[in-house]
Amino acid sequence: MKHSTQPGVTPYLITRTLTPENQETPIQFLNDEIVDRKLFYRRNHFSYPHFTSTFYFLPIDGMVHTPKTFSLQELYSLPSKTIKVVLECSGNKRELFQPKVFGEQWEKGALSQGIWKGVSLRTLLAATGLLHTAREIIFEGYDYGKRPDSSHIFSFARSLPIEKALEPDTIIAYEYNEQPIPFKHGFPLRLIVPGWYAMASVKWIKKITVIDKKYKGPFQTVDYVFYPNKENDNGKFPVTTIHVNSTIQYPLNRQLLPTGNYQIKGIAWTGKGMITKVELSLDGGQTWKICQLTSIPEKYTWVLWTFKWEALKKGEYTIRSKATDSEGNVQHSEAFWNRKGYGYNAIDTIEVKVE
Amino acid sequence: MKHSTQPGVTPYLITRTLTPENQETPIQFLNDEIVDRKLFYRRNHFSYPHFTSTFYFLPIDGMVHTPKTFSLQELYSLPSKTIKVVLECSGNKRELFQPKVFGEQWEKGALSQGIWKGVSLRTLLAATGLLHTAREIIFEGYDYGKRPDSSHIFSFARSLPIEKALEPDTIIAYEYNEQPIPFKHGFPLRLIVPGWYAMASVKWIKKITVIDKKYKGPFQTVDYVFYPNKENDNGKFPVTTIHVNSTIQYPLNRQLLPTGNYQIKGIAWTGKGMITKVELSLDGGQTWKICQLTSIPEKYTWVLWTFKWEALKKGEYTIRSKATDSEGNVQHSEAFWNRKGYGYNAIDTIEVKVE
Repeated sequence: MKHSTQPGVTPYLITRTLTPENQETPIQFLNDEIVDRKLFYRRNHFSYPHFTSTFYFLPIDGMVHTPKTFSLQELYSLPSKTIKVVLECSGNKRELFQPKVFGEQWEKGALSQGIWKGVSLRTLLAATGLLHTAREIIFEGYDYGKRPDSSHIFSFARSLPIEKALEPDTIIAYEYNEQPIPFKHGFPLRLIVPGWYAMASVKWIKKITVIDKKYKGPFQTVDYVFYPNKENDNGKFPVTTIHVNSTIQYPLNRQLLPTGNYQIKGIAWTGKGMITKVELSLDGGQTWKICQLTSIPEKYTWVLWTFKWEALKKGEYTIRSKATDSEGNVQHSEAFWNRKGYGYNAIDTIEVKVE
Repeated sequence: MKHSTQPGVTPYLITRTLTPENQETPIQFLNDEIVDRKLFYRRNHFSYPHFTSTFYFLPIDGMVHTPKTFSLQELYSLPSKTIKVVLECSGNKRELFQPKVFGEQWEKGALSQGIWKGVSLRTLLAATGLLHTAREIIFEGYDYGKRPDSSHIFSFARSLPIEKALEPDTIIAYEYNEQPIPFKHGFPLRLIVPGWYAMASVKWIKKITVIDKKYKGPFQTVDYVFYPNKENDNGKFPVTTIHVNSTIQYPLNRQLLPTGNYQIKGIAWTGKGMITKVELSLDGGQTWKICQLTSIPEKYTWVLWTFKWEALKKGEYTIRSKATDSEGNVQHSEAFWNRKGYGYNAIDTIEVKVE
């Protein structure tokens, strides 16, 4: 986690906006299996919440046999689950879409990885029971405010289909990297939905409601929806699973390099299954070679990869990385264009000059 | 200088590289006449210097009548000069060049403004006297290291022609914004050359040498040179005076805006003379309207400007800003392309969507 040999020289998050706070990580510092809380990207829809009480309870009600309210102490005492998870903003790499799209211009650093500990949601739902009419589960956060498209006040709230909610890895987390969750990342309780883009992992959970229909909140019917057309909403469908993806972290785009030997480095990740292969091209995608994976591929996590490059010939090089996962998904030259700019996962491309 | 109404929500510099440290400012926070030291962009060629002595002396020798060494106390006791100055990295906006160029991919935030206090260099040279053969003055910083093009160790050193060095506004500064100069910005002494790109304003000055010829150091014969051609060095000439320029700070590029009334905001600056006019176009440059200047134009400083916009019609807009200075310089649609990417100053352009 050492980033510089010079005292007082440390990386910062890249500020996109402050109201609400949206800051991403410079990609060269996502170079480990765990991202420090200081470099964990911040993505908010509203101002940070104020908690009005020092007591914190998590109610679960709706289509359940026995509504229940859990205290933090109860949650801490239940059997726990600890998982290493990539969280990726579905707008990550939005800036790369061609044609360009509007919205936060995230570059490549709106993602992170860390270790989350909590209680499986299914453990809590086993305690309340589920009515047979239960279809979706709504998670409401403490954060709220106005949306640009309305004068109403909305909480940030999203639902999961019951099947996803009952997966053992869907947890109500209370620790990040063996510490209480940082406030900006959802303290004291955050839903973690491994494998889905991070808008699903609702922060500062206020309450959980089981419903018997489809939830129509704007954060899943207006935002976080793929709109394949520029001028109309035809063919829209919701954003869910993380797309297979990779990012070159070293060298940096447009870097000047003296001739010499280099280790090209990067990460690759996917929402379902695990990364099985990362390939690299030094000729703009004509030929591909296999990269070495320097961490063990696991579900929900990124792999670190490297590639030895003898850069002996001067000139300009286009370097590309392409990941494949165990579900057979592979990165393509072009991302799936959509109006709001979600899920960008084209083959990663940089250019460097050896001189 | 208040950037957010939420406690704990503050902007950071954008980290480009850490070895050496190169970090720029998100442009929306250059919104005042003075930039706080925390948001002052950092641009280095080498690691930060270590001073081996707690005593600091500034020697001036070479083509002088009486070589002299000034202590800090002597400098503090001499008549002082205080000036508000824009410092702009000559690579600012490099990322915008088309065709793209290599090197640090600075966006629009490698510039700053603040108040520098120090002693006019001419006051010191009056004390040493100048031989009639004196032609240039070399300023050597305490920072040193290897360049990618050589195995030798170089100090960062640059010269000024004698005429520029003798201008009363060329100062040996010891204060920034009424405090000792921050270490990362040149403590205890920094040359300030108002109106020139900031590579001229040598940090951590170690010594000053008057010479009778042209100085050939690599930071003015290899770097900081305009190379108009991609494949050869024909027609090269040195980087000196800041080009007339402007930046739109609000809205942000690719921002989504609800219909409504907006104040478009920005800054404009130039190296010689002062800004006389800033114009704005809402139709991609077909028609131009005059912006209101909300600070007083002065030599060496940026002006703040605003433009009232009733954004009532939905759609996509291309917004452009164009500054003119008292020397008759004006921003053009295209920047002067050069291989190393210095001095970008095309008309600033953003796109927003009103919905």
